[in-house]
Amino acid sequence: MHDERDPQDPAPQAGTAVRWRRDLHRRPEVGFTEFRTASRVAGALADLGWEIRTGTDALSPGDRLGVPSDEELTAAYRRAAASGADERFLPAMKGGNTAVVATWRAQAPGPAVGLRADLDALPIAESGDPGHRPAREGFRSLHEGVMHACGHDGHVGMAVELAERLVADPPPTGSVTLLLQPAEEGGRGARAMVPAGVADDLDLLIAPHLGLNLPTGTLAPSLDGLLANSKLRAVFHGVASHASLAPHEGRSALLGAAAATLAVHGMPRFPGHETRVAVGRISGGTSSNIVPDRAEMLLETRADEGAVNEELEARVRAALHGAAATYGLTVDVDLIGGVTTARADRAAVELVEAAARAEGLRLVTARAEDGVASDDATAFMRRVQQRGGVASYIGIGSALAAPHHTPSFDLDEAALPLGVALLEGLVRRALAARRH
Amino acid sequence: MHDERDPQDPAPQAGTAVRWRRDLHRRPEVGFTEFRTASRVAGALADLGWEIRTGTDALSPGDRLGVPSDEELTAAYRRAAASGADERFLPAMKGGNTAVVATWRAQAPGPAVGLRADLDALPIAESGDPGHRPAREGFRSLHEGVMHACGHDGHVGMAVELAERLVADPPPTGSVTLLLQPAEEGGRGARAMVPAGVADDLDLLIAPHLGLNLPTGTLAPSLDGLLANSKLRAVFHGVASHASLAPHEGRSALLGAAAATLAVHGMPRFPGHETRVAVGRISGGTSSNIVPDRAEMLLETRADEGAVNEELEARVRAALHGAAATYGLTVDVDLIGGVTTARADRAAVELVEAAARAEGLRLVTARAEDGVASDDATAFMRRVQQRGGVASYIGIGSALAAPHHTPSFDLDEAALPLGVALLEGLVRRALAARRH
Amino acid sequence: MHDERDPQDPAPQAGTAVRWRRDLHRRPEVGFTEFRTASRVAGALADLGWEIRTGTDALSPGDRLGVPSDEELTAAYRRAAASGADERFLPAMKGGNTAVVATWRAQAPGPAVGLRADLDALPIAESGDPGHRPAREGFRSLHEGVMHACGHDGHVGMAVELAERLVADPPPTGSVTLLLQPAEEGGRGARAMVPAGVADDLDLLIAPHLGLNLPTGTLAPSLDGLLANSKLRAVFHGVASHASLAPHEGRSALLGAAAATLAVHGMPRFPGHETRVAVGRISGGTSSNIVPDRAEMLLETRADEGAVNEELEARVRAALHGAAATYGLTVDVDLIGGVTTARADRAAVELVEAAARAEGLRLVTARAEDGVASDDATAFMRRVQQRGGVASYIGIGSALAAPHHTPSFDLDEAALPLGVALLEGLVRRALAARRH
Amino acid sequence: MHDERDPQDPAPQAGTAVRWRRDLHRRPEVGFTEFRTASRVAGALADLGWEIRTGTDALSPGDRLGVPSDEELTAAYRRAAASGADERFLPAMKGGNTAVVATWRAQAPGPAVGLRADLDALPIAESGDPGHRPAREGFRSLHEGVMHACGHDGHVGMAVELAERLVADPPPTGSVTLLLQPAEEGGRGARAMVPAGVADDLDLLIAPHLGLNLPTGTLAPSLDGLLANSKLRAVFHGVASHASLAPHEGRSALLGAAAATLAVHGMPRFPGHETRVAVGRISGGTSSNIVPDRAEMLLETRADEGAVNEELEARVRAALHGAAATYGLTVDVDLIGGVTTARADRAAVELVEAAARAEGLRLVTARAEDGVASDDATAFMRRVQQRGGVASYIGIGSALAAPHHTPSFDLDEAALPLGVALLEGLVRRALAARRH
Repeated sequence: MHDERDPQDPAPQAGTAVRWRRDLHRRPEVGFTEFRTASRVAGALADLGWEIRTGTDALSPGDRLGVPSDEELTAAYRRAAASGADERFLPAMKGGNTAVVATWRAQAPGPAVGLRADLDALPIAESGDPGHRPAREGFRSLHEGVMHACGHDGHVGMAVELAERLVADPPPTGSVTLLLQPAEEGGRGARAMVPAGVADDLDLLIAPHLGLNLPTGTLAPSLDGLLANSKLRAVFHGVASHASLAPHEGRSALLGAAAATLAVHGMPRFPGHETRVAVGRISGGTSSNIVPDRAEMLLETRADEGAVNEELEARVRAALHGAAATYGLTVDVDLIGGVTTARADRAAVELVEAAARAEGLRLVTARAEDGVASDDATAFMRRVQQRGGVASYIGIGSALAAPHHTPSFDLDEAALPLGVALLEGLVRRALAARRH
Repeated sequence: MHDERDPQDPAPQAGTAVRWRRDLHRRPEVGFTEFRTASRVAGALADLGWEIRTGTDALSPGDRLGVPSDEELTAAYRRAAASGADERFLPAMKGGNTAVVATWRAQAPGPAVGLRADLDALPIAESGDPGHRPAREGFRSLHEGVMHACGHDGHVGMAVELAERLVADPPPTGSVTLLLQPAEEGGRGARAMVPAGVADDLDLLIAPHLGLNLPTGTLAPSLDGLLANSKLRAVFHGVASHASLAPHEGRSALLGAAAATLAVHGMPRFPGHETRVAVGRISGGTSSNIVPDRAEMLLETRADEGAVNEELEARVRAALHGAAATYGLTVDVDLIGGVTTARADRAAVELVEAAARAEGLRLVTARAEDGVASDDATAFMRRVQQRGGVASYIGIGSALAAPHHTPSFDLDEAALPLGVALLEGLVRRALAARRH
Repeated sequence: MHDERDPQDPAPQAGTAVRWRRDLHRRPEVGFTEFRTASRVAGALADLGWEIRTGTDALSPGDRLGVPSDEELTAAYRRAAASGADERFLPAMKGGNTAVVATWRAQAPGPAVGLRADLDALPIAESGDPGHRPAREGFRSLHEGVMHACGHDGHVGMAVELAERLVADPPPTGSVTLLLQPAEEGGRGARAMVPAGVADDLDLLIAPHLGLNLPTGTLAPSLDGLLANSKLRAVFHGVASHASLAPHEGRSALLGAAAATLAVHGMPRFPGHETRVAVGRISGGTSSNIVPDRAEMLLETRADEGAVNEELEARVRAALHGAAATYGLTVDVDLIGGVTTARADRAAVELVEAAARAEGLRLVTARAEDGVASDDATAFMRRVQQRGGVASYIGIGSALAAPHHTPSFDLDEAALPLGVALLEGLVRRALAARRH
Repeated sequence: MHDERDPQDPAPQAGTAVRWRRDLHRRPEVGFTEFRTASRVAGALADLGWEIRTGTDALSPGDRLGVPSDEELTAAYRRAAASGADERFLPAMKGGNTAVVATWRAQAPGPAVGLRADLDALPIAESGDPGHRPAREGFRSLHEGVMHACGHDGHVGMAVELAERLVADPPPTGSVTLLLQPAEEGGRGARAMVPAGVADDLDLLIAPHLGLNLPTGTLAPSLDGLLANSKLRAVFHGVASHASLAPHEGRSALLGAAAATLAVHGMPRFPGHETRVAVGRISGGTSSNIVPDRAEMLLETRADEGAVNEELEARVRAALHGAAATYGLTVDVDLIGGVTTARADRAAVELVEAAARAEGLRLVTARAEDGVASDDATAFMRRVQQRGGVASYIGIGSALAAPHHTPSFDLDEAALPLGVALLEGLVRRALAARRH
């Protein structure tokens, strides 16, 4: 049994963003289990005077995808309760409703500015190598097999420090809303917050991401090439029988999975588009002498345009059903994650560029290939754009020790204060602007 | 243009069976194009005084499978007309109705005995090697690419000589019916004669086959292991497009054919049964830069029990449709041939054994593996058995120069008079017996 | 932690065979972990005065297949030590050397008779239904997920009772050897005992099996149709990469497994032979956005003739390597189990028949389809036959509650005393015979 | 037998380009059979005083790909001889050496300018619909199944008229070389001319193409997006056997082709690149009861970068060999066509733009998607660039009745004089320039 008491604060002298980042890094929580993370952020922002919506006020539970099992949710909830979750907000999050929406309002009305930060970590075992700074400096993950390997800990840290600064020196007009979302990985959380209306009245939405192969001190005012995706789980059902005594009575679920795997990988190219198809996992059967009656596949499609991804997904679904029919099987196909694409608005990009120049950051171009293939912030962006607002997904340079989603990933923490300053400048500039 | 005049009779001194065999060997005709063969047999038997039914009196055209194209039928008809067909019977056979049923009746009523002989040749190019007797002795096939490589020429020869002998020395009671069927290869002819009622009133049916790896002078009174089969043609229909400019607009029919091929070969074993599945031919597409919109497959199933073959055929059809659906295609599946199984009746076998012993033939056991996997004589046998008669499929030994269905196949003609004697003895014995 | 103390003896009044059967039923141990079973049998037989060979004296460790991991072996060893293993014999079995060979010798030399009994259980969760007698009467498996679902517990029980009877009333000449083998399931144990020479000097070997769909009171003096088999584990190795950012850098191990699955199932039929091929399990990959670099398959071939099985295995191996090459992968293929076939000797069958008649058992015919597809007793049989002895695999009728290898399997215990009597009569008869 | 006499000149009043275009349109010849086309062009240019190289002086026979069979070459040669081929040049072209290189030299030395024109037609049956102008106006193809459906007839027509004009009004310096290549379709001809040195000393090479979805009166000074490609023929060799009597003795070539088809279509995407893979044709086997011992596939890879195409081709080859090994087959893989990519040089583009503006043509942008996926003019372009020259592939607008490579394709002939004028202006401008 591991020790549930936290070690000493690993960054006593650092700024708020870095201190939060290291605390969260030590306590990573995967999608929809961010009970400690979300409740603590809610508590800190509430203490600063921000309005807080959480639980079912901040998301629509039925619109979540890929929610963990009750057992996993319960275990994570208990662990959070035992390791510093904020009891004021924890109960409302039970069952995985771990979204937080925090709003600050100026005295006078004005533009509504939104910022997205994502709360979740990844199911990756963090490196224990002494060359890996979190290991060396004592803030390596305490949760074996789970890791902040994409920088979301930094995103939350920057959001909290920004909140402090706005409270300390309040702008005269407008409002700021922090959209703290669960389950960005897999594209499962933002889609559930949109129906709760949390992005409906924003004039501007900015979704910042740290890293992306951009050096510390640079800023990408928009990120091109994000792909829409659909993540599917297919379960083939056949008939078990003894593979030697009665092979003809069985219907092998693995044959369906095998044929589907080849068919999915054989989807055609779409000229002029980036597309992807992948079968990432197959699991079926028990021993060699039993015809397997169940096989599960995880697979995904991606495309640089939502409609193309939808077409690919439709063809993949047809292939799964066809492969099942070929071998006398049935198949259940569930969407367990999915994001769409979104384009940056020129007005938003210009505002970001102005703020970056004011902070002395060097403007650069970034592409999805630099590290983030898809992001469900696009669900918020599309909603804001539909309602007349503008949006951009921006990259905040931070030299990386290793690529995103790998065991030795580490941020350059020097990027955090730069990021906070940029976001602060951007918010103040946006609030001072005339309403778009 | 090759010379349509026949060369000299290649066997002037030989008996009727051998002379007919050599004449037919030189003029082989594939299934449903046996215009010359059938009309000449009909003419010869009519001249002997046998009653003749032919054309649609002897078969039901709509029940034929795998009928050649109109062009092929017309060309074969013309060739027959120019090379000795019997003009009295030819016109009724137009369009491929090339069955002949010949009946001889004794003065007094008595048992009805039937014998099956098959008329068709194979699409195989006959060897021209001097070591191959038909080549050396001048009766090699004049029809390039077509050959009597299964001994049907001998079957017909024996039937004609038997007819002569019965007329020469008529039994006092009963009747004999010769079922001269088209298109045994592929299992396409007998099934069309059964609905015409030609086997309905037989008390005994014998289907003799020459060869089967049995030495000359031996006789197998029944043949075990004949397999039921279903021969299918599947045509996959997709959508053509330029494989480089618009691959996503195409639907490759070849992908469906490929997936179906793997699925068909993956049909399970049925314990305790001999089964077979095979894809024998695929043809689709034109050039590498066009997504192919059509692919044709020939395939078959077999089993040692009709019901197992039906189950296999049903699964194969499901696989074809499933594979089509997998790739966004449609598929048309046609049954182009098919035979069932039949078991020999003990009473028939005993009669055969008695006749063989009387003729000094050595009784042996034969199995389908010795050379004939399936034979649609089983359609006649099942009909006779359903109506209360008995039947057997018998093997008449004839040393072979090379296996059935190969370019150097050749019968030992010494077997023909032995076969005629056996059949004559058998018929006389059966007619003398009380009605079964 | 479950209670390691055993409940009360579930069969205090029953005979030795039944009492042992129930004790072992409650403590089932899978192949090569039969530490408690094997050590207790060794102890009981030693106490009766039989010579005991065990550990590496009874098997050749390097010839075992499918040995569990060190962790599994250690855990099972500890469990056995805590639940009644015989400490005199346990240490020699460490590491999974759980074979026991026990020999009794008469005063005077004479024939050497061998009997095989198998010690291992199956990885099947036993039914807890009250209709299931072991559950109702308190001897259901205490080891969750492991069950004596093939009757080996009864085999061992009969062997112990037989040993008691021979000691109580010793025959005057000859010797009896009990071959108590581990890991019959999967065909992994006998092959390792043969090289230790334990079957080298036997004049007669009998391998009895209970059940097989034979009613209590019947006896099958030989079992036809046992299939040779080869059980393989194939591990495909590819290259992992991000499925969206760098799909071209990855090599999906699942593609190899999928293609191999279709190819293995597409192995041709062998006319005249029963053959089987099956892929029973595939496991590979983690999430949909990672190209999977590892996939594991379990598969098997079977045939009614050893040489045909070898040919099938060779083709399957070729298919695995070909499929790997097709997708730029490598594959490791390990034989993890395998048995050959063996035929019963007429002399052995006659001896069994005589003994059965003397005991009033009804002689019946059994086939492998009745419940046991393969058995590695054939390895002992072949060895005995090679050295000039004779052998048979016999079925002792015992009405079953459910088929072999299912969660509700249960023997009719009334068969056990009948089986012991048969074996005793058989042994006495064989020892009394002249040396073969 | 069709009439070899040509009908009346279909364009008596038209300019040279149109008259030639219509004559060639009526007599289309596929790759390496352009005996009539090439010999007549050579004759006409020789008559104008141009130096002619043809036959093995203009190409290296061993470097050709996809050369037709001897029978096809002979038949085409005879047809050409009987329908107006130029007897002075025909004999040197025997065997398919149908390249022509024609050079004009000014009095004084100067820049060497090259123009590519392609001679071959496509195996497409031309529309006979009255709405199709060549049908309506009497210059529809006389060669059934062959058609100028890509506009090469216009390319040759423009080249001949350009040659006339240059002779009529000779520039003072430099030289002009017309590279009249066979077998552009499939990428089979240019690669054989490069080793003959015909492009070695050119300072500028222009490869014009008519159509490409560009309206008449427009000009694209370079064409982006041409793909490199590799066209392969794979022949799988197995073992034939009777599918029912001896399936285990056969090795089905179709199983290899099927598995390879699925594998080839499953090649991964290369992020940031356009790639293509396609199996366009499979043909194998004869009837359903013979295990097919031969199957032929036509397939291709394409990519927007030569190195990526090479990687794809290598993987496809590995897949073909792996699939063969999977099923106990061998496979022969031949490259039967292939082109690389080339980029336009800025200097060449500027020259084209200047000429176009001078002729009043509207400059537009074209992409490969507009109609030409690949063109082996890139082989000449790369050679010229390697030797220090510059090159561009240009599009000359010509409104199309239907897309390239379809039965109703037709040029707007009004584009031909515009194209000739452009090329004349371009050549004069280039010859007047200082040597690059």
